[in-house]
Formats: sequence, structure tokens, C-alpha cells
Amino acid sequence: MIATSPALAKTLVTALPGDGIGPEVFEATRRIFEAAEAPVEWEVAEAGAAVFRKGIASGAPRETLDSIARNRIALKGPLETPVGYGNKSANVTLRKHFELYANIRPVRELPGVKTPFTGRGIDMVIVRENVEDVYAGIEHMQTPDVAQCLKLMTRPGCERIIRAAFGLAQAEDRRKLTCATKANIMKLTEGMMKRVFEEVGPDYPDIAQDHIIIDNCAHQLVIAPEQFDVIVTSNMNGDIISDLAAGLVGGLGIAPSSNLGDHAAIFEAVHGSAPAIAGKGLANPTALLSAAIMMLRHIGAFETAETIEQALFITLAEGENLTGDLSPRGHGVGTDKFVGQVIENLGRTSNLPSRAYRPLELKAWPDRTAHTEPASRELIGVDIFLESSLSAAELGASLTAIAEGSALRLDSISNRGVQVWPATGGRTFLVDHFDCRFMLNEPAAGNGPQGISDLVKAIGQKHSWMHVEKLQRFDGKDAFERPQGES
Amino acid sequence: MIATSPALAKTLVTALPGDGIGPEVFEATRRIFEAAEAPVEWEVAEAGAAVFRKGIASGAPRETLDSIARNRIALKGPLETPVGYGNKSANVTLRKHFELYANIRPVRELPGVKTPFTGRGIDMVIVRENVEDVYAGIEHMQTPDVAQCLKLMTRPGCERIIRAAFGLAQAEDRRKLTCATKANIMKLTEGMMKRVFEEVGPDYPDIAQDHIIIDNCAHQLVIAPEQFDVIVTSNMNGDIISDLAAGLVGGLGIAPSSNLGDHAAIFEAVHGSAPAIAGKGLANPTALLSAAIMMLRHIGAFETAETIEQALFITLAEGENLTGDLSPRGHGVGTDKFVGQVIENLGRTSNLPSRAYRPLELKAWPDRTAHTEPASRELIGVDIFLESSLSAAELGASLTAIAEGSALRLDSISNRGVQVWPATGGRTFLVDHFDCRFMLNEPAAGNGPQGISDLVKAIGQKHSWMHVEKLQRFDGKDAFERPQGES
Ligand SMILES: NC(=O)c1ccc[n+]([C@@H]2O[C@H](COP(=O)([O-])OP(=O)(O)OC[C@H]3O[C@@H](n4cnc5c(N)ncnc54)[C@H](OP(=O)(O)O)[C@@H]3O)[C@@H](O)[C@H]2O)c1
Ligand SMILES: NC(=O)c1ccc[n+]([C@@H]2O[C@H](COP(=O)([O-])OP(=O)(O)OC[C@H]3O[C@@H](n4cnc5c(N)ncnc54)[C@H](OP(=O)(O)O)[C@@H]3O)[C@@H](O)[C@H]2O)c1
Repeated sequence: MIATSPALAKTLVTALPGDGIGPEVFEATRRIFEAAEAPVEWEVAEAGAAVFRKGIASGAPRETLDSIARNRIALKGPLETPVGYGNKSANVTLRKHFELYANIRPVRELPGVKTPFTGRGIDMVIVRENVEDVYAGIEHMQTPDVAQCLKLMTRPGCERIIRAAFGLAQAEDRRKLTCATKANIMKLTEGMMKRVFEEVGPDYPDIAQDHIIIDNCAHQLVIAPEQFDVIVTSNMNGDIISDLAAGLVGGLGIAPSSNLGDHAAIFEAVHGSAPAIAGKGLANPTALLSAAIMMLRHIGAFETAETIEQALFITLAEGENLTGDLSPRGHGVGTDKFVGQVIENLGRTSNLPSRAYRPLELKAWPDRTAHTEPASRELIGVDIFLESSLSAAELGASLTAIAEGSALRLDSISNRGVQVWPATGGRTFLVDHFDCRFMLNEPAAGNGPQGISDLVKAIGQKHSWMHVEKLQRFDGKDAFERPQGES
Repeated sequence: MIATSPALAKTLVTALPGDGIGPEVFEATRRIFEAAEAPVEWEVAEAGAAVFRKGIASGAPRETLDSIARNRIALKGPLETPVGYGNKSANVTLRKHFELYANIRPVRELPGVKTPFTGRGIDMVIVRENVEDVYAGIEHMQTPDVAQCLKLMTRPGCERIIRAAFGLAQAEDRRKLTCATKANIMKLTEGMMKRVFEEVGPDYPDIAQDHIIIDNCAHQLVIAPEQFDVIVTSNMNGDIISDLAAGLVGGLGIAPSSNLGDHAAIFEAVHGSAPAIAGKGLANPTALLSAAIMMLRHIGAFETAETIEQALFITLAEGENLTGDLSPRGHGVGTDKFVGQVIENLGRTSNLPSRAYRPLELKAWPDRTAHTEPASRELIGVDIFLESSLSAAELGASLTAIAEGSALRLDSISNRGVQVWPATGGRTFLVDHFDCRFMLNEPAAGNGPQGISDLVKAIGQKHSWMHVEKLQRFDGKDAFERPQGES
């Protein structure tokens, strides 16, 4: 699958040195790879600030996308979005273009990097879903004062990331996978991840499995981080806890990551372009080098990976030639000297053994629209969201009258999820965004028009609606949540 | 405002001892209050498991709601939702009923509670928005495989919590307020909180102000927690980082909180009912006692608050009679003995001074539907979300044909926020949930029907739609985000 250059049996990798300190840390990695005779050949490509300045609004030109599509593997430095060139990030472009759905963030205590948790043997991996959730970026102002973002989670999306996490646990000889969600509050979206976790879990009997509420997970990460092995979680949760976890072992500056999908894998440092030290030869290449070591394992070059990793570990442990960010003030060396030390240490073994790795197998997903037909489906009502400055009582009376004689009747009105009509006695603060729930007098099989479009039209003559959601039943179960009322 | 019993000039407080260890830690607090002659009189009320078992599905009976409404202040033990009595929590019922929009979580290093961060002087408050965001719980299955939760954030909601946070900073003589959001990704929702923060900030020139991206905030909380003073954030973010922050100073078991609104304030321990130790006289009352100390300050009893707080601090610092959770194994004492020690220490002063407090003034909000009329509004298109197993190309062709001759034309189709029609060359994995964007040929003033209902109806004859969002412009600005495309 992955392109190899036959003469040398080397794997061709697209190299995106990137912006700021990117080229420096890439060059450092390249030198160490050369010294270790890593079986990799680089195909250098462009992305980031220079590309934006050429007027390519995605930050990644066609040739770069083609190179990654061909090689299926890339090592990427930090990319900047220069101010004034739109607000799209080249990082997001690459992630979305190649549907890199799995973000892998190893978090391991490094020798010589002192933190309040030093000595506790933190060694975990956070597997973050990388394309769904609130990051789909689907936002609509509902009224001038009410903003909405759609949090979308899908069954195939959950299954893909959960199987990737189980696969990773197996590949890294890990014992336990913890699924972290907010399923107790968001029963349909976050709950879906928990349910899928429980469904596919039995396929991996060699891996212990548990679920944790995401807020408790953040708490436990600070209280007793040693308890975690692999954590799988949704995009927003994962964004927060992966940065938290990186902090436990020394921070984002030394954290590597990979972004995996069916069609490509991109390895990168978590840090940015650190413009303040760019071009000065001071950058610490540990993060990008660690990402490159992950990449070697991804292509099956386990031995070279271990050789380089051990040289890095021993360099950090001995603490001689470390860059400024890891040294007492005034004792830091330049990138060059650090790299030289790592190269000198190639072949030595540190006190911290490398883990055992096997190839990571990702389930390949068919290249067609994922769809499951339920055994039965019914349409039972509709939520019509409208903008109004009326009181709940006035609105209730008006909508009841409009629905009179139609196929639907007004069931309830809620405001930010709290029922306000019929009144409950609560002291709800009202914004001008009402969720008006109508139920069909006769639930109907299928998902046809059923008079809903007519009701919407009739309401549009008196009120200002902006959002409609059908209320369905799939396989005999309500496919929506009820507002918080009193009974 | 707050009910006081005139004979004794005592404040009447609704007491909800709650479930599990709740009654024990409440009794401990009551005894200490009595010994300190705190100006409080208790009106004991019911909520939680026993109430559910009586068949009251909200977990809080009318008399309890009435008591809190009358007294405007309550001290609450942990409440359980017994299995089999629905999935509504009495805590959520109380929060929503009284619109307790501000969750206040002080995080201060306590003497005698050893953590990896001991000695660094952590002393911050997290102010979490408590009623909006994904917690509105508005969820709809879009297709059998695609779940959606609405993340709603409102301008008045943001303004209320931000002003509460500034007010709290002033009341506690704090220097800096940090607003933590994901505004870089969710420009309309999370971005609204950041914008409102910047707008109201100038009203508080005595408080330093900055903004931090929420993932970096979680990172910094672990790397350098001392830098934070007050943090204000949205509901989901706050849920995660407040539990994280509690972990830095010893965990949820000793963390207090308050829930403030215009009509009531409820003070509580963050921990749950700890069923494993319930009824054994072993529970640590520190969290509920600390919440009760916050309550004393809320009613202006600053001196008594300080007397009790200092007795608690010195008890913890001297480390004699501590409960099991804070003692080396086998050296813990019962709740009773700990309480006795605190009472004995009333009047003594610890090495850790109490902070200076002033009354917290919350801006009162008018009791009508919050609404702002923009100077101009236009309707420019509609997003129609539909379920389909077609390819993007097939769907594009079909919808283009359906729109032919109507007032709208198909502009683009996206799948989980990524444009898939017109094709971009990306390798997007398709789920059966397409966001089909139609633009009006002639944008129209106002928010009238404009042929949109007709288009929806026509699409419903061929495709299965379940969700519609109008695309508006307010004050000349697009009130929606564009999907991630290539150009
Ligand atoms: N994946 C990516 O491509 C990515 C990720 C994050 C940010 N960015 C972009 O990078 C730019 C800068 O972002 P930022 O300043 O927020 O974060 P950053 O570049 O990571 O820099 C934060 C600080 O961390 C230190 N640092 C980071 N990496 C280091 C290294 N390898 N060696 C030594 N010190 C290191 C530097 O500290 P000192 O300056 O104190 O030495 C730097 O100021 C922005 O344009 C941002 O959009 C890109
Ligand atoms: N605000 C609320 O009302 C609230 C909040 C959270 C949970 N809950 C409810 O409480 C029930 C139990 O929840 P949970 O087990 O997840 O959390 P929990 O009750 O906080 O218990 C977690 C563990 O923390 C320890 N602990 C908590 N508070 C303590 C105290 N005051 N003194 C000594 N140790 C303490 C106990 O450890 P050991 O058992 O090891 O001694 C306990 O097992 C559930 O029904 C939940 O829904 C209510």
C-alpha cells in the first residue's frame, strides 16, 4: 500500500517542514534518520504560511495533496495561518481532505524531563476522534442573540475510532482501553460512543475495558494518571484532555502525535511554529523526532525506531546537551549540539525500555455512503424553532390556534431545553429562541411530508421560524430527547 | 431580599441533607455552625432518592421548591437518582427550576492536604456557565446512524455569566479574569462568549483580563496553575476544567461550590453520596462545610465565615483528627471527632489567611424575553439536512433538478461539515446525513416564507429530510458558517 522506493527498499514519505522552527526541527530529524540509516526517503512539499501568501486559500497546494495521496504518509512541521489570509488552517485542510479520523497522542514520562508527576511512570495513549463532533463547524445564528453549533456524532464515526483505539492497544501491547464520554448528559450523541464501545468491545477480549465520565476523567488524570493505559474519546473532549495529559509529562513542546485515516497518515509535533525562537537554532526537535519514531513504527521499521528512541531517551536522561526549554536557565545548547548528542548515542540503551510494538491494523471502511435502514420508522412530530419576543403563554396560545385543524397539535414549548409551556412554575430566563414541539395526531410510517410542510408554512405567516427538526421513531424508539420539565 | 427570622436576625436557609453521607456531613456542618453561633436558621426539606421513591419524578417536591423560593438560599447535600426512577436528576431539576446560571468553584490549596502541587499557592475560582451549551439536552437522531445535540449559547447567557465572574473577582479582591473558550473553532457559539467578554470588560477596569483557548487552559492548569485567578467559561468546558482544577488541590471530595441565579443560591459539596461509607460516621464534612462558609459570605456573615474557615484550616494544618480520606491508612478518625476538633479550634487563626471578601452584587435581569432587533435582516438561503444513501454526485444532480425553476438554487452539499458537492477531490467518508445548502436567487428582507416551505415540500417528495435551518444575514453579516471546502 505505502509507496516504497524499490532500489533501496526505502519508504517514500512526504515531508512538510512547515513554518517557524519547523524547518529546523525537520532538518534535525532528517539528520538523525540519516545517521541511523532509517529506511525513509523524503519527498519535500510545501504547506502553510508561504502557500497562503501565494494566494492558495487552503494552505496546501494540489502538488502537496497529490504527494501525500501517493505516498500515503507524511511528516509535518507546524503550519501557520498568516493573519489576513482567511481563517482556514492548513492543518484542518489536510485532516479533512484525507479524513484523518484518528488523532493518536502518546503521553509517556520522559527521562530527564522533571514534572510534579515524575517517577509515577505515566505511560498512556489518548485516541481522539478527529473529524466529527462540534468540530464539523456547522454553526447558525438562530436569532441575533442566539448562536447554535451542531454537535454531530455518527455510528460509523464512533466505530472507526473505537476500533482504531482497540487496534492500537493491541499493537502496543497495552492492557486496558477506557472510553471517556459525557453519555450521562448527552444520551444520543455522547451516549452513542459509549454504546458502540460496549457493542464492539467483545471483539477484543484481550483488552480490559471501562467507561468513565469525561469530567471525572480529567479529575483522575490529575489525581492518579498512572491508572490509564489507552483512552478513547470524542473530538472536543479529546482536545482538552490530550493537552491536559501532555502537561503531566512536560508539556506540548515535547509531545508527538499522529493523524490516521484510511488513505493517509500524517505525523507531527503538537507544538506550533514558536516564532520567537525561529531561525535561531534553539528549537527542541524532540516532539517532531518522537513523531517520526511513531512513523517508523507505522511503516514497520521497529528496530530503527527503537534505536533512535533509545538514543533520545539516553540523551534526555544524561541531561548533558539539552535545548534551553529542558535546561536550567543559561545551560541550554542549540538544536545542532542536541542532535549531535542523539546521533552519538545511537546504539546505546537507556534505563527506560522501549515498548513492544506490532503493526497497527486499521479496519478498512467501504468507500460508499454509510447507511443503516431501521426495521421500522415512523414520523411522530416536529420541533419548530422560532424567534419571538412574546411570553411563553402568548406564544402557546398563538401556536395552539395556528395548529387547530391541522394534522398536528402543540405539545410543549421549551427555551434552551427547559419546558416553559405548559408552565411548570420554574423561573426560566427566556431568550428569543423557542423550541415549539408539535405532535402528529396520527403517527405515520416512513418520513413523508405528513402536513409538516403545511404547518411550517402556516407558522411562517405569523412567526419567524429559522429551524425545523422532525421527530422520528426508529425501530419503535423515540429518536429525540424530551425537554427538562417538571413531571 | 433574603428571608431573615426577625427575632434573632438569623437568615432562614433551606437545608437539603440529601442522600448517603449527606445527612452526616450536613449534621457536622450544623454542629459547627451552632458552636460558632452562625446567624443561620435551618428549614429542613427533602430532595433526592426518597422523593423519587415516593413517585415524584423530578426528585424535588413542591414544598421543597417553595421553601427555596421563599428563602432564596439553600445548603444541599448530595442527591442520588435511584436506578429505575427515570433518568432525571434532582440536581438538574433544582438548577433549571431556579435558573442557577452561575456555578462557582473555588480551588484553593488547603493546609495539610498533600498533592503534587503543594506549596505552589494555587488559589483560583472557576466560574462555569450552568444552564446553556450542550447541556440544554436538545438531541435528535438525524438518521438511525447520526446523532445530533444542539450547542446553544446566547448573548444574554454569556453576559450574565461574564458579569457574574467580574463581580466575583471584585467581591473576592482578585486581580485577573481569564475567559476560556474554543472561539478559534466555534466562531459563532464559543466566539460569542469571547466577544461578549471583550465588550463588557471595559466596565471592570480594576480587573486584568485575558482570553485563553480551552485546550491550552487545561494544559496550563497542569503546567502552571498559579497563573490563574478567576476563570470564566462555558458549561461543557467548565465541567471538565473545574473537576481538573479540583484535582490539583486534593480532589472532588473536599471541593465546595455554589450555584447562583437571580432568584436563589444553592450551596453544595461537589462530591456525591459516597454510598460505600454512608451511615458509618466516616465521611469528611470539609466540602459541605466549605460550601456553607461560602454561603455565610453570600449572606454577608463575613466574620463568622472567617472564624469557621480558620478553624477548619488549622485543623487540617495540624493534621491531628482528620478523617480517613485525608490520613495515612489506619490513622483516620470519625466525622464526629473531626467536627469536635474544628469546634475546639474555633477562635484560633491558621498560617493561611482567609481572603478579603465583599458582598457579591449580581446584576438583576429583567423578567421578560430577551430580544434584540437588528438594524437589518435578510433571508438568503436555507440548509436542508436529509438522509440518503446516494453518492454526493447523485444527490447533487437530483437536488439541482428539484430546485430548477424555484426561488432557490443548490449551492453546495456537505457531509459532517466538509463540502462534498461540488467535488473537491477530498477523501471524505460519507455518512447518510447531507447538509444541502440552497441560496435564494433574490435575497429578501425579513424572514418570510420566500418559497422555502415550497422547496422543503418538493424535496420531501423525493428525499427524506429531517432538519432545516434558514440562512440569515443580521446587520449585513452572514449569520452562519461555511463548510470546509477547498477554495
Ligand atoms: N500543528 C500545527 O501546525 C500548529 C500547532 C499549534 C500552533 N500552530 C501555529 O504556530 C504558531 C505559534 O503558535 P503558539 O505560539 O501558540 O504555540 P507554539 O508555537 O507551540 O509556541 C509556544 C511556546 O512554546 C515553546 N516551544 C514550542 N515548541 C518548541 C520547541 N520545539 N522548542 C523549544 N520551545 C518550543 C516556545 O517558547 P519560547 O518562545 O518561550 O521559547 C513558544 O513560544 C501559530 O501560528 C499557530 O497557529 C501550529
Ligand atoms: N451534587 C450531587 O448531588 C452529586 C454529585 C456527584 C454524585 N452524586 C450521586 O452520588 C452517588 C455516588 O456517586 P459517586 O460514587 O460517583 O461519587 P462520590 O459519592 O463522590 O464517591 C466517590 C468516592 O469519593 C469518596 N468520597 C466522596 N465524598 C467523600 C467524603 N465527604 N468523605 C470521604 N470520602 C468521600 C468515597 O471514597 P470511598 O468510598 O473509597 O471512601 C467515594 O466512594 C451517585 O448516585 C451520584 O449520582 C450526586
